[in-house]
Amino acid sequence: MRIKVVNPNTSERMTESIRLAACSVARAETEIVAVNPEFGPGSIESYYDEHLAAPGVIEEVIKGECDGFDAFVIAGFRDPALQACREVTSRPVIGIGEASLHVASMLAARFSIVTILPRIRVLLEEMVEAHGCGRKLASIRTTPLSVLEIGQDMARTRETLRDEAHAAVEEDGAEAIVLGCAGFADFTAELEAELAMPVLDGVVCAVKLAEALVELGVATSKSMTYRWPETKPYTGAFERFGTRDPEQSS
Amino acid sequence: MRIKVVNPNTSERMTESIRLAACSVARAETEIVAVNPEFGPGSIESYYDEHLAAPGVIEEVIKGECDGFDAFVIAGFRDPALQACREVTSRPVIGIGEASLHVASMLAARFSIVTILPRIRVLLEEMVEAHGCGRKLASIRTTPLSVLEIGQDMARTRETLRDEAHAAVEEDGAEAIVLGCAGFADFTAELEAELAMPVLDGVVCAVKLAEALVELGVATSKSMTYRWPETKPYTGAFERFGTRDPEQSS
Amino acid sequence: MRIKVVNPNTSERMTESIRLAACSVARAETEIVAVNPEFGPGSIESYYDEHLAAPGVIEEVIKGECDGFDAFVIAGFRDPALQACREVTSRPVIGIGEASLHVASMLAARFSIVTILPRIRVLLEEMVEAHGCGRKLASIRTTPLSVLEIGQDMARTRETLRDEAHAAVEEDGAEAIVLGCAGFADFTAELEAELAMPVLDGVVCAVKLAEALVELGVATSKSMTYRWPETKPYTGAFERFGTRDPEQSS
Amino acid sequence: MRIKVVNPNTSERMTESIRLAACSVARAETEIVAVNPEFGPGSIESYYDEHLAAPGVIEEVIKGECDGFDAFVIAGFRDPALQACREVTSRPVIGIGEASLHVASMLAARFSIVTILPRIRVLLEEMVEAHGCGRKLASIRTTPLSVLEIGQDMARTRETLRDEAHAAVEEDGAEAIVLGCAGFADFTAELEAELAMPVLDGVVCAVKLAEALVELGVATSKSMTYRWPETKPYTGAFERFGTRDPEQSS
Amino acid sequence: MRIKVVNPNTSERMTESIRLAACSVARAETEIVAVNPEFGPGSIESYYDEHLAAPGVIEEVIKGECDGFDAFVIAGFRDPALQACREVTSRPVIGIGEASLHVASMLAARFSIVTILPRIRVLLEEMVEAHGCGRKLASIRTTPLSVLEIGQDMARTRETLRDEAHAAVEEDGAEAIVLGCAGFADFTAELEAELAMPVLDGVVCAVKLAEALVELGVATSKSMTYRWPETKPYTGAFERFGTRDPEQSS
Amino acid sequence: MRIKVVNPNTSERMTESIRLAACSVARAETEIVAVNPEFGPGSIESYYDEHLAAPGVIEEVIKGECDGFDAFVIAGFRDPALQACREVTSRPVIGIGEASLHVASMLAARFSIVTILPRIRVLLEEMVEAHGCGRKLASIRTTPLSVLEIGQDMARTRETLRDEAHAAVEEDGAEAIVLGCAGFADFTAELEAELAMPVLDGVVCAVKLAEALVELGVATSKSMTYRWPETKPYTGAFERFGTRDPEQSS
Repeated sequence: MRIKVVNPNTSERMTESIRLAACSVARAETEIVAVNPEFGPGSIESYYDEHLAAPGVIEEVIKGECDGFDAFVIAGFRDPALQACREVTSRPVIGIGEASLHVASMLAARFSIVTILPRIRVLLEEMVEAHGCGRKLASIRTTPLSVLEIGQDMARTRETLRDEAHAAVEEDGAEAIVLGCAGFADFTAELEAELAMPVLDGVVCAVKLAEALVELGVATSKSMTYRWPETKPYTGAFERFGTRDPEQSS
Repeated sequence: MRIKVVNPNTSERMTESIRLAACSVARAETEIVAVNPEFGPGSIESYYDEHLAAPGVIEEVIKGECDGFDAFVIAGFRDPALQACREVTSRPVIGIGEASLHVASMLAARFSIVTILPRIRVLLEEMVEAHGCGRKLASIRTTPLSVLEIGQDMARTRETLRDEAHAAVEEDGAEAIVLGCAGFADFTAELEAELAMPVLDGVVCAVKLAEALVELGVATSKSMTYRWPETKPYTGAFERFGTRDPEQSS
Repeated sequence: MRIKVVNPNTSERMTESIRLAACSVARAETEIVAVNPEFGPGSIESYYDEHLAAPGVIEEVIKGECDGFDAFVIAGFRDPALQACREVTSRPVIGIGEASLHVASMLAARFSIVTILPRIRVLLEEMVEAHGCGRKLASIRTTPLSVLEIGQDMARTRETLRDEAHAAVEEDGAEAIVLGCAGFADFTAELEAELAMPVLDGVVCAVKLAEALVELGVATSKSMTYRWPETKPYTGAFERFGTRDPEQSS
Repeated sequence: MRIKVVNPNTSERMTESIRLAACSVARAETEIVAVNPEFGPGSIESYYDEHLAAPGVIEEVIKGECDGFDAFVIAGFRDPALQACREVTSRPVIGIGEASLHVASMLAARFSIVTILPRIRVLLEEMVEAHGCGRKLASIRTTPLSVLEIGQDMARTRETLRDEAHAAVEEDGAEAIVLGCAGFADFTAELEAELAMPVLDGVVCAVKLAEALVELGVATSKSMTYRWPETKPYTGAFERFGTRDPEQSS
Repeated sequence: MRIKVVNPNTSERMTESIRLAACSVARAETEIVAVNPEFGPGSIESYYDEHLAAPGVIEEVIKGECDGFDAFVIAGFRDPALQACREVTSRPVIGIGEASLHVASMLAARFSIVTILPRIRVLLEEMVEAHGCGRKLASIRTTPLSVLEIGQDMARTRETLRDEAHAAVEEDGAEAIVLGCAGFADFTAELEAELAMPVLDGVVCAVKLAEALVELGVATSKSMTYRWPETKPYTGAFERFGTRDPEQSS
Repeated sequence: MRIKVVNPNTSERMTESIRLAACSVARAETEIVAVNPEFGPGSIESYYDEHLAAPGVIEEVIKGECDGFDAFVIAGFRDPALQACREVTSRPVIGIGEASLHVASMLAARFSIVTILPRIRVLLEEMVEAHGCGRKLASIRTTPLSVLEIGQDMARTRETLRDEAHAAVEEDGAEAIVLGCAGFADFTAELEAELAMPVLDGVVCAVKLAEALVELGVATSKSMTYRWPETKPYTGAFERFGTRDPEQSS
């Protein structure tokens, strides 16, 4: 089985970190290929970044569909372009945000998300609501950490994460912690040990769900909402996105 | 890895059928043990049946916890006693209804449930709502089939399922079909071929999710809602349920 | 008029306390019979306890239906097995949790529930949501009190209740207090005096609603969801639950 | 016990009909006084009518509070001015719409409302939603009947009601019928016999709930939302509404 | 274009203040006529006041419809009688509460309402929910200010508003402030300067939306819910409201 | 006042059509500049198209911010990249979908959307829900029309629109019609005449709301969710999006 993991930002350091996380849980017979788009933002911290990351993510899934991958993981916590990616392949596509919400729902009655900058709060509220998990959400705890800072100062990141996770448990009633950024994966184990409750990184959740779906033999429904995109001309720098005749490519 | 699949009714024929479905997707290294309670209803078609099935289901999970199983699957579509089972083990417990909703959400934008008797409709509406999937539900389609009849008249069951699934697609906008009874598993493949969209049986979904959670190394949160039950006396025929001191049994 | 009040746990002391509360508001011509199941937990503080209490509760309602009672009250705050009980009788069945929510809604715009252990919080949130009262709920205030402790240390219980009720009013905006455990009934009057707002015990609410429904001459709808359970075999220790032919027993 | 039933429109014929319905279920020791405002619309079939009925309804409750009534029933299906009436008395105030929703919820899993003109549909949707009963509502079935026509052509009203009630059961899944106009009360018994399920008239439901609340000894919460209105000047034709000093009148 | 702005209370001082606010944003060619009812409360601080203000508001819109106004603004923050007013005219009718919610939604992801007395909180929660803005609401902040006090002690009002607005931003996550009382309009500019975010007064929002709708040439839908009121007799002091034959008056 | 109207697709014919619609309602002193991105899809009929249109839309708003426009209109019915556009300017940004929902809410109690291909249904359901208009929505009516076909066969488009609009009114209870595609604008007047109810094209609604907001002097809140994007490197073909230092560009 071959799973393509798409880091939606263009940071190769983070792509490598995501690849390591993915490989740490993938089964021996699962081949993990981790990539990032060739163009777009170095990190995603706003609607702006997310929209400018989306085309590159979609392009990676289109290429992966041609290359015969069995499933795709979108490794950004808001699952950028997830639904568009489902339009350009018949294989399963799983977002890491979505995956961590599904897993958290099976392990805990209430959970909190600990994430990056305060400006991201409303974006995550929208995502949680879209997945129908509003009632299971104990809280969203933001931090002063930008994506860049996570990798630069591990000690500060560790302390900040721990403080907010403790606050989520003690003040908000969290019974599990969902890490709201792919960059937090390195801290999963120690946080879990300290809090004595599930601490979930989306990358590992999504890889295991992808393996499960592939082994189930299921495919993305192409019957209506996620049909292949309509054939039509695209212009300018995106002309290459427009020549698809979806029925032929399936 | 050892997964205990608990058929919540006492029909051994259905237990065997569930075991076969589970084994059909389990990996070679996964040991599937399928059981049913020693006491309770022969099928579940009402709140009444469900409540009288629950103690037997819980007992099987308690036994399975002692026996060191790695995960549990509750193989009734309404996930009877799911949350109580999470209280009596630290291992993952997954319901087949829940599992099929999670999988359907990752494959299709809208799905319908095709199920048994009309009296079950409100029970399934409650379940879908509890999992936050209300907006993704295209419809619930009931049939005149009781659980017993499913096994007795395969031709009629096949035709009824096909008719309702087609109606769900054409009239209600379903983009995937969730089979709302463990007894429908045998028809998955042919329905999927006919409809050209995902048709999901909960047993296989739950087994694959269980494998995924075990390999992730995650556990049910014991921090609050799913803590071990409080120690207390039980009386009469259920006296045996009361001597647990949960901290000692963990 | 004869009303059967079913304490869902097997504590005879609590059954007697519930009986006294029920009689304190019942009219002279109303006969109150308070019972508890012959088997099950001594108190209900988890999903586990609740599921193991349910069969005994159902059995008491079945017996009461044969004995010609005019209505049933389920005297556990989460209304254990309420819907299943509606399947086994055509007479009104009222839960004390449900009753107190209905009464609170007619007296106050926002109310809080003061209840037992923190682990019960999510269970009550589910109940409030299921009754459509989510927006009217100011808060759920848990306490360190187990059901057993309520009866053992009246002074501590009184003080704890008072503190949390005051906090609900002053911090959460409660305009009435719903007591979230049948064991709190003794404190209703003094709390109401102290807070100068409605303080509601579910047992007395349910008894008065039961009288009202009986005098209205209404019956539980047997047309669909609450039909008599399907006839079917039950096995093992629950074999006795399976010989019902519902049409004959009505 | 003395209950004041306020017909919100000025039709004395309907007031008498409401009085008869109320008396038919009131206990011997309950005194029913049915009145209508001295000014306002002859029937309520729009927001306009409702707003112009409200002052007269409020005035009747203010007078009733002075006269020492024990409870009030607002006998219009949308419960006009219900919350304002709770501000001008400390006694229980119950609307017939609200009462029938509470009673229906205790008897059936899903119910439909059969009511008057199509223009009223959205008004009733709002009411059902405000009471948190949205999920329990199978449908609202309007008819071509104006309030005036109900009393004029009994045969047509009977037939129309029966047709829509049958459609609610067979097409919408109703398990009980709520009659969405006080003028339909005369048809309750025969509809109930024909449909073999609960058919609820709000007036009788509200009277029995009022008796229950009075016997419980509970009062409307005056702690916040339903406090006595602030003292202030009123001008013009409504000057008399402005001289209340609420603390003195309690 | 002529817009009639109806202050729902009878305070002429507040009518003048509302007129000044309206004129401050109206275009040169827009004629603003600000009025208040001839009868009713001097301010609105409860359901009671609101219901007794409504008839006068409706009467002003009826008169305005005869006088050929192009649009109507209801200048009370809970939009008293808004829907009834839509029944008595075919021209656009806009409430200031509604208008400020629409404008806030286009400028900010989350906003708070700062308003008068605590007893008004639930009334505003209802309004926000009715407009579907529940998720966009960061908080409602009440103050100890009655409507009368706002005008009497400008220094105290300014300080109170500022304190609560700061708290809304810093503690509740507000990204814009909606002023929940027409009497707060004078403080808009300085609050906006201090907070560096949108601070919205409903009167100016509603006037600009009214101009926009008139220039769009759109009309209130008279097809169903907002049809002209049914012709019928009114009695007593409100007899004048009953002789309308709506088709003739359109 | 200068308003920049951004057609999110690259069809110049549609840009011109949108420009004409915008100018038809803009005031004399309002300058309308209608543009389309230099790269992207020729029409938007899927998540895929939408995501590939977004960067070009954002770029047009960034340019417009530099050019000193007073407000922006995003002229695609799903409001592509609306929130990202609010991050890159401090001026008001209004989507045509959002605008038509706001206007419809002020004119009608229930409305339907008539739109293009069936695959778009779920995308519009999401949009309506995100704006809190779920309860006001009578229905979404899709047609077999692609965006391209709208312009090619006016007779067929007219007939299809009329049929679905009539069905929305007669079967779904619509009291106003929202046209769910900018390409339908030409049919607004005749549909409105035929149906005798509001028929709303989003472009004209958005232009008038934009004028209103500009004259109000309000700005997009830059305090949290819509802050300027974080400064960071962008790579590859999107490198130009990454050199922004937002504080300097404001």
